[in-house]
Amino acid sequence: MPLDDFRITTGKRFRLADFPPGSKPLSRGSKAEDLALIAELGEGLDAEQDIFYAEHRRKLLVVLQGMDTSGKDGTVRGVFRSFDPLGIRVVGFKAPTPNELARDYLWRIHLQVPRAGEIVVFNRSHYEDVLVTRVHGWIDNAEAERRFRQIRDFEAMLTETGTTIVKCFLHISRDEQKARLEARLADPEKHWKFDTTDLAERKYWKAYMDAYEAAIMATSTPECPWYVVPADSKTHRNLMVAEILTRVFEDLKPAYPPPKPELAKVKVE
Amino acid sequence: MPLDDFRITTGKRFRLADFPPGSKPLSRGSKAEDLALIAELGEGLDAEQDIFYAEHRRKLLVVLQGMDTSGKDGTVRGVFRSFDPLGIRVVGFKAPTPNELARDYLWRIHLQVPRAGEIVVFNRSHYEDVLVTRVHGWIDNAEAERRFRQIRDFEAMLTETGTTIVKCFLHISRDEQKARLEARLADPEKHWKFDTTDLAERKYWKAYMDAYEAAIMATSTPECPWYVVPADSKTHRNLMVAEILTRVFEDLKPAYPPPKPELAKVKVE
Repeated sequence: MPLDDFRITTGKRFRLADFPPGSKPLSRGSKAEDLALIAELGEGLDAEQDIFYAEHRRKLLVVLQGMDTSGKDGTVRGVFRSFDPLGIRVVGFKAPTPNELARDYLWRIHLQVPRAGEIVVFNRSHYEDVLVTRVHGWIDNAEAERRFRQIRDFEAMLTETGTTIVKCFLHISRDEQKARLEARLADPEKHWKFDTTDLAERKYWKAYMDAYEAAIMATSTPECPWYVVPADSKTHRNLMVAEILTRVFEDLKPAYPPPKPELAKVKVE
Repeated sequence: MPLDDFRITTGKRFRLADFPPGSKPLSRGSKAEDLALIAELGEGLDAEQDIFYAEHRRKLLVVLQGMDTSGKDGTVRGVFRSFDPLGIRVVGFKAPTPNELARDYLWRIHLQVPRAGEIVVFNRSHYEDVLVTRVHGWIDNAEAERRFRQIRDFEAMLTETGTTIVKCFLHISRDEQKARLEARLADPEKHWKFDTTDLAERKYWKAYMDAYEAAIMATSTPECPWYVVPADSKTHRNLMVAEILTRVFEDLKPAYPPPKPELAKVKVE
């Protein structure tokens, strides 16, 4: 099952149920082989990132979405850790502050988009404004449809002005979330990650899956695709995200800026 | 010669001439041994950074200053590359924009200070406002003295509110800069790094060294020390910065937040 099958470019036939969270479609067989492949892809990505930074022309935005414990932080750590900090920036979006709520919901997002040569990873994003808001009925269907259009328009503008957008839904199962929450409870060093309000959200699992399905259906385009990343396996999740980024750079083909002929005459005194 | 000798906590007896850029005081002997030590220190730093991030209480600001080609980017790459991107942010300060010039010179700096649990690396900083400005006579001595006091006060406030500040002067020789500029000229893939206006600044070398000496003398305190990092050797430069950070974390002793006893009763449904 190739990567293409997990790349959603149109909502037409998209059903989340077609993507089992426990599957490992890209696995080479064993965890050891997959880790070796991640390391190998990582070397290529690091090299491409350096050139992308030097090129200083285009921008790359990676959106990570998923339920609590789905591995957004872990993906940053596992896939992006070896990137040069000069060229990568991670932005986490939490519940909006009063200052942010006093503007439209895309305002704080727009403030954080990547600049030329930069890779920005969104740990949660504007998609929360069509997910948590919808699950709890803070917006109605008409408003959700309006936001889907606004998001498509916003992302199209970013794309047209030089930003490549890659959206990853880290797809875990309800059972896997249970196991991960229990592991956090059992380890005092992980208590800081545990928020009891997350347990309340867990009761709305089905509503969240419906909201994700609707959001992915409505905002998947050939230019701004979603990837559904089966994420019950952490190793496989990292492998797939590394493969997605590898493909992005294959398409972008970053190149060093052209040599400057005028430097031929320069002498350093 | 231990690290302490390169840590400037008072300007009283400080003379830049006492620090030869080509010296390698911390070297274990060979480049291979030094690289192995950097890798070893890096593993410890990565572990400490993860806990510092989890602790989410204190902040760490690393200021990198130095002449063109002194290796500010290279230090980020060589020492900070394996840090978790969640907890580190690099901010480069270039010539101020009209929007920035319309405020005081510390305004754009204050906007970028680290938040709790975060490490921020300044690639250039507010110190440019007492260096390039002074070399070219854009500010007089009285204004420089005023700024030194403002900077001490600003850094003291940051320190008192939970930020550890480490300032590194990457100290290269004029000859080493010549060799590095010529290497950039010789490699078309490095032409994008070459700015012919840098050559003009090179003529003011002595004035820059005087300005650095004065700035370090005036802004070194026990709470906000400067480190003079001999930087003609890239490996040794990275080694010293890694040692400095290791000592910072030894002093800070990051710790996981305390376990939450109330989680003992929590059941994941």
